[in-house]
Amino acid sequence: MTQNPIRFGLIGTGRIGQVHAASIAADPEATLSWVADPFIEGARGVVERFGGTATESPEQLIASGEVDAVLIASPTPTHVDLIEASVNAGLPVLCEKPIDLDIARVDALRPLVQSAGVPVALGFNRRFDRDFKAVRDRVAAGEIGELEQLIIISRDPAAPPADYVRVSGGIFRDMTIHDFDMARYFFPDIVSVSATGTRAFDPGVREHGDFDTAVTTLRTASGGIVTIVNSRHSAIGYDQRIEAFGAKGMLQVANAPTSLVSASTADAVEAKPAFGAFFLERYAQAYASELAEFIKLARGEASTSPTFEDGRAALILADAAQRSATEGVAVDVAL
Amino acid sequence: MTQNPIRFGLIGTGRIGQVHAASIAADPEATLSWVADPFIEGARGVVERFGGTATESPEQLIASGEVDAVLIASPTPTHVDLIEASVNAGLPVLCEKPIDLDIARVDALRPLVQSAGVPVALGFNRRFDRDFKAVRDRVAAGEIGELEQLIIISRDPAAPPADYVRVSGGIFRDMTIHDFDMARYFFPDIVSVSATGTRAFDPGVREHGDFDTAVTTLRTASGGIVTIVNSRHSAIGYDQRIEAFGAKGMLQVANAPTSLVSASTADAVEAKPAFGAFFLERYAQAYASELAEFIKLARGEASTSPTFEDGRAALILADAAQRSATEGVAVDVAL
Amino acid sequence: MTQNPIRFGLIGTGRIGQVHAASIAADPEATLSWVADPFIEGARGVVERFGGTATESPEQLIASGEVDAVLIASPTPTHVDLIEASVNAGLPVLCEKPIDLDIARVDALRPLVQSAGVPVALGFNRRFDRDFKAVRDRVAAGEIGELEQLIIISRDPAAPPADYVRVSGGIFRDMTIHDFDMARYFFPDIVSVSATGTRAFDPGVREHGDFDTAVTTLRTASGGIVTIVNSRHSAIGYDQRIEAFGAKGMLQVANAPTSLVSASTADAVEAKPAFGAFFLERYAQAYASELAEFIKLARGEASTSPTFEDGRAALILADAAQRSATEGVAVDVAL
Amino acid sequence: MTQNPIRFGLIGTGRIGQVHAASIAADPEATLSWVADPFIEGARGVVERFGGTATESPEQLIASGEVDAVLIASPTPTHVDLIEASVNAGLPVLCEKPIDLDIARVDALRPLVQSAGVPVALGFNRRFDRDFKAVRDRVAAGEIGELEQLIIISRDPAAPPADYVRVSGGIFRDMTIHDFDMARYFFPDIVSVSATGTRAFDPGVREHGDFDTAVTTLRTASGGIVTIVNSRHSAIGYDQRIEAFGAKGMLQVANAPTSLVSASTADAVEAKPAFGAFFLERYAQAYASELAEFIKLARGEASTSPTFEDGRAALILADAAQRSATEGVAVDVAL
Repeated sequence: MTQNPIRFGLIGTGRIGQVHAASIAADPEATLSWVADPFIEGARGVVERFGGTATESPEQLIASGEVDAVLIASPTPTHVDLIEASVNAGLPVLCEKPIDLDIARVDALRPLVQSAGVPVALGFNRRFDRDFKAVRDRVAAGEIGELEQLIIISRDPAAPPADYVRVSGGIFRDMTIHDFDMARYFFPDIVSVSATGTRAFDPGVREHGDFDTAVTTLRTASGGIVTIVNSRHSAIGYDQRIEAFGAKGMLQVANAPTSLVSASTADAVEAKPAFGAFFLERYAQAYASELAEFIKLARGEASTSPTFEDGRAALILADAAQRSATEGVAVDVAL
Repeated sequence: MTQNPIRFGLIGTGRIGQVHAASIAADPEATLSWVADPFIEGARGVVERFGGTATESPEQLIASGEVDAVLIASPTPTHVDLIEASVNAGLPVLCEKPIDLDIARVDALRPLVQSAGVPVALGFNRRFDRDFKAVRDRVAAGEIGELEQLIIISRDPAAPPADYVRVSGGIFRDMTIHDFDMARYFFPDIVSVSATGTRAFDPGVREHGDFDTAVTTLRTASGGIVTIVNSRHSAIGYDQRIEAFGAKGMLQVANAPTSLVSASTADAVEAKPAFGAFFLERYAQAYASELAEFIKLARGEASTSPTFEDGRAALILADAAQRSATEGVAVDVAL
Repeated sequence: MTQNPIRFGLIGTGRIGQVHAASIAADPEATLSWVADPFIEGARGVVERFGGTATESPEQLIASGEVDAVLIASPTPTHVDLIEASVNAGLPVLCEKPIDLDIARVDALRPLVQSAGVPVALGFNRRFDRDFKAVRDRVAAGEIGELEQLIIISRDPAAPPADYVRVSGGIFRDMTIHDFDMARYFFPDIVSVSATGTRAFDPGVREHGDFDTAVTTLRTASGGIVTIVNSRHSAIGYDQRIEAFGAKGMLQVANAPTSLVSASTADAVEAKPAFGAFFLERYAQAYASELAEFIKLARGEASTSPTFEDGRAALILADAAQRSATEGVAVDVAL
Repeated sequence: MTQNPIRFGLIGTGRIGQVHAASIAADPEATLSWVADPFIEGARGVVERFGGTATESPEQLIASGEVDAVLIASPTPTHVDLIEASVNAGLPVLCEKPIDLDIARVDALRPLVQSAGVPVALGFNRRFDRDFKAVRDRVAAGEIGELEQLIIISRDPAAPPADYVRVSGGIFRDMTIHDFDMARYFFPDIVSVSATGTRAFDPGVREHGDFDTAVTTLRTASGGIVTIVNSRHSAIGYDQRIEAFGAKGMLQVANAPTSLVSASTADAVEAKPAFGAFFLERYAQAYASELAEFIKLARGEASTSPTFEDGRAALILADAAQRSATEGVAVDVAL
């Protein structure tokens, strides 16, 4: 490294904000300069552990003159305004997904982002998972021939609290959105969305028009099909698998084991401990790699960071899935 | 066994007819009495290997007075007439799937079958696969709690000849129909069908309105979702997997290995030989068990053989899938 | 097949004799002509199921003029005399292992066998197991470079009755003898034997100088090492694994699964049903292939059947292992 | 944590010394205070990265008054003197294995260590591997009944340089010594050692009386048998497996995967990337846990750190194995 570290302003110090703070502290190319959270105790706690200056005010952080890039990890409704303020201040942005739950607000922001001289990246961390990335790169290199089918199985260990579900925007915008981006990571040419949602175990989500169980099918212009299988709960633990099926073969990513031990008895053989970790542990490496890639972007170097456009596309797919599941029609999309 | 063997009349001596002939010969509860095929050389070949009397005429077989049950393995368009003739002769029938490609013909036959004093069973052999059955029984016993999601992956090793595709009735009626029955084996309360089909590798199927790649989603009244993933080809060999996901856990059926050997080198570890067998080998045990179960049915004993109604239900689902994939709508079904 | 089937005389109708009778009946190149057992009911039972003439007298069988080959599956102490009588009658022999428990008797028989114009094969069926054979052939073809280490894990599901153990000749001559032959199948140049035996769970075997648990190490002239791990019991079922380790990689044979189903819950994931089958089921294919290979031998065709010399070599290794385990020395062998 | 961090003096800054320096820096209960290496550039490099004072002189480090514990990671011949000096200075010691290559020197040091008021721990890091420890704890808890057989497969990716081999003390004292300690971790009552060594691929080791390939069998007083399979090279990568076989079942530790990806094609299915990491990566977690456990020991708290006696016992087993492999006798040991 011959350059100065990127000075980060971190906005939001919840669960995911703390992950980013730790990644910034651990990356020799980055330092944590300012930390903002209206819940000032949160900001102070992060500063104590990882350094920087704490503030209640994101505006003060952006105006400080001491940050080279902004990492937005605050609640979704604040994202659009914070992206706008950062971009107007000439600061590159890494924003957690989704940009917003309302595509109209995203579209209203879009011209500014497109004309800004600074990059805006979206926090689709799974693109940086070592194994998902390896499969995508091997597919791109032609190892399994033309890609024909992609199956994404994505089930959370346990449903979030009802309060969270209520403001989440629904399973497609809140949870499947990661899978929509993963689908686009493999297939850039999605043209149609067909989704089925049910309430298999949590009748309470019905009042928000939401689902706890969903399957989404995406059709591509080139004849590929993506299948996304979601559940808001999973007794076996965090279930995150991918299967890429091509003309010449198949590449699969298995669940991450929590142990190398298997047990065999008269009742069952080769049993392994349950999959345990949720996303913070499962994707720890991915969050760190995401940050490293964003630093390249902020420096003006070649970077594979997903962009604002990727964030917008995933939201369009989520909206289409919600409509498809509600109205029983396949929904065409133009991304 | 204290009873006389069931004397079978076998109609049709193609690939699947020969499998049934061998099963009949191997089952001590059955004997092969008559074999009919307009291609008389086929009938004679079967008789030479497994015994019985050969004829060109199914009518002669039915009227012979020497058969206790009829096994119909002739081309699909002949099924309805042969079921009708057998039932009118008071003979129990085991008929290969599908009953017919035209639901109108099936419905026209239905009253006769319903009022007949003899059983009509359908050849959904996969219900008798040791492992699929074990998973279904374990699900029914509550091992994984309420069943919420079923994923069926079903890919043939290689696409059939164009001539076959042309008269096959399309991927849903010809290939997915087995998976529709499997779905109903686990979930009897399917209410909606949503399907996506593409031509990923064989543009030639377009002229018949057919697809080479398809994903079908079935919704159940109880909130379950079935996902069926099909391809007409599979470089890795016959791909037949099932995953049953419930509130308390998951049961999976893996592909059948062709070897217990794995190889590890500096390039790759634990590599196994490719999955090779197609349905005749993969489901050899299932065909034998199917026959044994039908013999019980023919004897008037308790039996789990799938029925004419199961055959009709699978065709209704196939029709719905074809319409859904063509028109881009979810199709409600009343089975 | 353009030749007449080989007419077999089967001597011995216990568990393994019945397996051979079934193999003979199922092989179009063979017929069961005579069956001898002093326990005449046994012989009659086999004849009823598979054909032939029953007798109490092996001599009558050999002298009948109606057998082309003799299959000896009677108790071990009878093997030497029956081989002698068969060879003297000019009949090819397939004899179950071991030739005898006493190397002196084997050596006394040896000149006759060597000078006889008819072949004597030994029943080391595991050489014909599809997967063991595949690994051996792939090793021979150089896939993993020079073979350096071979690990054979061989554990029986449950210890035999005490009465059997008493006359068995001990674990090395009775059980490990199969593994000694397997070792020689891979490494023809064994020069030294070192064995350790214990009574881990069955103190009763001590009175016969026997062990219930043993590990044997074989050294080869070329620098290879074979490790054989034995136990007379195995809670997880019949445990039969092989690992061939070479300069360029490794080939492994896993245990035969009894199902393709795996179960995942909050407690354990990917658990499979226990390994269940014992040797009659596990090696069913191997017994049939062994017979087919012997038929070639009996016809004077090229054949890979293990020979009398292989049987003698395995016994020498067993004797050496017994001595090594008892006296605490490595024992050199000249095979 | 309510106590002050332990101030470490680190002696030796080679590969393993650097691992310990990083572990000390990462553990909030420890600080790196002094670093000694006659190769002073090594000491300075470590100090630059992790803090502390660099010196050429271990004596200066011990006498500094600024260290609470000594971590000895210098070459084996220096261990005995450095343990003696540290203990005489009243400092707890964590010493890398082996204590020495000469049991006479170890025995000469033994009375001092036994009478010292400070603990001396040995660096058998594998006891702290999450999965080996889990298996040992589950065995101790009775999950698989009485432990009867333990198989340890331990193969290094590539043979060390000839210069290293020459002074290594031979494969048993240098490499197998870890496995001897692992054997004692499971079975404390080993009474006999039988070893076989060969030169399978590196004839050059013969001049030192050494082997490149070895299998060692350990017998326990209670009837258990341990099998240790070693090779100095492994084309498939670092091969570190354990199988604990008991009266009621089996627990296995598989090799650590380098990826969750598997590939399937027409040639091979479910192939995974090769095992790659050597001990520094494979046992990174174990080294950190080892340090944490030693800190407890240094603080006078309950600790499971292996002791000087464990180090001596492993060396006795290694000596016995060397003699057994050379002389062809089983060697009794009294540990």
